[in-house]
Amino acid sequence: MKAEIVSTGTELLLGETINTSAHYVAGKLSSLGIEVDYHTTVGDNPERLEQVLRQAIGRSDLVVTTGGLGPTIDDLTKELVAKVMDIKMALDPSSLEQIKQFFGRRKAPMPKNNEKQAYFPKDSKILPNPIGTAPGAIIVNNGKTVIILPGPPFEMTPMFDNFVWPELQQTIKPEAERMNERVLKVFGMVESAIEEVLVDLMDLPNLSMALLAKRAEMHIRLVARSSEKSSAEAEKVLDNAETEIRRRLGNKVFGRGQETMLGIVGQLLKDEKYTIATAESCTGGLLGAAFTQEPGSSEFYLGGVVSYSNSLKQGLLGVSEESLAKYGAVSEEVAKEMAQGILSKAGSDLAISTTGIAGPDGGSDEKPVGLVYIGLATPEGVIAEKIQFYGERESVRQLTVQAALNKVRLHMLNSERRRQRGDG
Amino acid sequence: MKAEIVSTGTELLLGETINTSAHYVAGKLSSLGIEVDYHTTVGDNPERLEQVLRQAIGRSDLVVTTGGLGPTIDDLTKELVAKVMDIKMALDPSSLEQIKQFFGRRKAPMPKNNEKQAYFPKDSKILPNPIGTAPGAIIVNNGKTVIILPGPPFEMTPMFDNFVWPELQQTIKPEAERMNERVLKVFGMVESAIEEVLVDLMDLPNLSMALLAKRAEMHIRLVARSSEKSSAEAEKVLDNAETEIRRRLGNKVFGRGQETMLGIVGQLLKDEKYTIATAESCTGGLLGAAFTQEPGSSEFYLGGVVSYSNSLKQGLLGVSEESLAKYGAVSEEVAKEMAQGILSKAGSDLAISTTGIAGPDGGSDEKPVGLVYIGLATPEGVIAEKIQFYGERESVRQLTVQAALNKVRLHMLNSERRRQRGDG
Repeated sequence: MKAEIVSTGTELLLGETINTSAHYVAGKLSSLGIEVDYHTTVGDNPERLEQVLRQAIGRSDLVVTTGGLGPTIDDLTKELVAKVMDIKMALDPSSLEQIKQFFGRRKAPMPKNNEKQAYFPKDSKILPNPIGTAPGAIIVNNGKTVIILPGPPFEMTPMFDNFVWPELQQTIKPEAERMNERVLKVFGMVESAIEEVLVDLMDLPNLSMALLAKRAEMHIRLVARSSEKSSAEAEKVLDNAETEIRRRLGNKVFGRGQETMLGIVGQLLKDEKYTIATAESCTGGLLGAAFTQEPGSSEFYLGGVVSYSNSLKQGLLGVSEESLAKYGAVSEEVAKEMAQGILSKAGSDLAISTTGIAGPDGGSDEKPVGLVYIGLATPEGVIAEKIQFYGERESVRQLTVQAALNKVRLHMLNSERRRQRGDG
Repeated sequence: MKAEIVSTGTELLLGETINTSAHYVAGKLSSLGIEVDYHTTVGDNPERLEQVLRQAIGRSDLVVTTGGLGPTIDDLTKELVAKVMDIKMALDPSSLEQIKQFFGRRKAPMPKNNEKQAYFPKDSKILPNPIGTAPGAIIVNNGKTVIILPGPPFEMTPMFDNFVWPELQQTIKPEAERMNERVLKVFGMVESAIEEVLVDLMDLPNLSMALLAKRAEMHIRLVARSSEKSSAEAEKVLDNAETEIRRRLGNKVFGRGQETMLGIVGQLLKDEKYTIATAESCTGGLLGAAFTQEPGSSEFYLGGVVSYSNSLKQGLLGVSEESLAKYGAVSEEVAKEMAQGILSKAGSDLAISTTGIAGPDGGSDEKPVGLVYIGLATPEGVIAEKIQFYGERESVRQLTVQAALNKVRLHMLNSERRRQRGDG
């Protein structure tokens, strides 16, 4: 089953609005194993919209449209779908009644224009719109299915979930043909390095594997199609692949599916009932902001210091004037003293520090832009890691946050392992 | 000039990634008055991508592509553009050198695959990629222009801003045909309130005005077309409109065009040679992260404390145990003590604090989710403002940061005015 999405709306073409509706529909169709081949966006222009619809309905089995259901004369999606499919338009009295009620609830008469919203291609299945005045529709004709949805995401999404989703699962794309998917998330390896380690797994007949580079992470997307195997068998294929990938990549794999680095780190801290504090220079508060992003973070995050100036490094963290003078603010020594300083001020189990040159200015041959030290202190001792990042200021800052979180993750995994071995 | 955008990437079709690149490019092209007629997204499928490119290059004067520039064999955008335009591919030695350097800096050999990224349609203008290994290109042939950009927004956006934008303005879409546009930015007024104050300006014959709601700001977009007037005359129309709007809205207008709240606040602090420090609870470091977002912020931002736990509010800021017990952490009293505490620790001219209930938990009837206090301390005294926000956790945190920045802005404007009057 081949599908495509056609969106209409001048605000999308002008770049005023992001096309989140297409994104939403695409994700839902893919999760059912429906192959989405194209998204096309056109403005409220009848010729271009007709041409795009003609092409889409011609080449795909399923076409989902969003937008162009408003009351004005440039809202023409239903009319043009009917024209392309050679179906007449017909009034749906119950939709007209609902639109009248919509205005009734607002104590306003229905403008004549809105009557248009109660007309549909004949024999459509009509999808009610509890939020706005534009109902949607499903039209099946000549082996082609067209699903017509409103543009605004807050109208489209509930209509999709309540009326389109059950229809898709029951009649349009029954279970047997679904796609089973799994995403593994990797930190600290580039695309080519992962490819090298996994190359022999990439061409298995019943498994497809794709690598996707995110800013600080690599995602490995595994897909096993249930059309070839039963869903349980496909899950087995994914389980085996995951086990093998984890065996080869070790703790470079930090999570899967919806798991995030932040969520994983928070969970490790909570599980071990550890508290943490931060001392930030180049990240300027981003690391604290990350730790406090999710509710419940007060269970493990005590707070920290943003010691952007040297005076605050000394005054609030007790970094020594001597180290600042001898090694400079961006140094292993200062990273360590920052971490130790906040550890002792906060009385936490763990402390993490960042100091670096985010750029674009301030770099030198010896300490180039992107040079970062991350310190990690516990009551047992302190270490610092030197990392060289590349990129723009905001990128260096974000990568530093991710590397610091990963450092906490690895520390927690190791301490957990030590504990399990009985060393700790 | 008719333009369209072609995006390639299976992750877009599958709904895993939102197509923010198309949105960004569309907004930029539109702002130059270039008519964007279509966005099309296809996966990494050679036949479908070729067909889409052939259609796009056939019907539009300018085609911008995003994605498909990676090192793997399913990355085919450049090759297919060359095929459709009937141009040979050629190696660009300087790009090859840069890609090698990219790996060299990471102390890794360049995988053979990456060589492919140094090949371009012959006679392309090559666009360097300082962040990744995929350079972009501009190809002009037979009256058609194709601009080839990488897919990841953090690579695409700087390439667009640094290399494509000047090219578009100078050669592809020269000044004479532009739309003269101006955006005024407002903080602290809702859409309907602005509309009420400006309603009589909204229907002038040679000026179009639109209101656009952002998360914490309202933007007033004024457009005068140069095709109807000379550019100088159109600018005059905008000047007059801006003067009138500023007269009516006063210091609710905080900036225009590319100016940001953050940039304006930083400039005010620099102009007055003021230093500032932060004490954050509910924003968890976001306010410090905002102050340090732009280079040069060390001129005015000294740093601060993220006092997420009560123990750090006491230990690092000297908030009294009595106030915490009597009024609670989210209170006017504690906001004031936090601001005073960091002012005295940092020795800054100004200090700003945040404490609130970001949610989703922790609210009560008396102190609902979204309740925030912002404190502002100077050596002359301290004040705190109570604000009730509505929305999700991240939204409350971001709105708090913006409100805190605006509080600093208004303070600086007032102290500047006092100084000019000779009071200060």
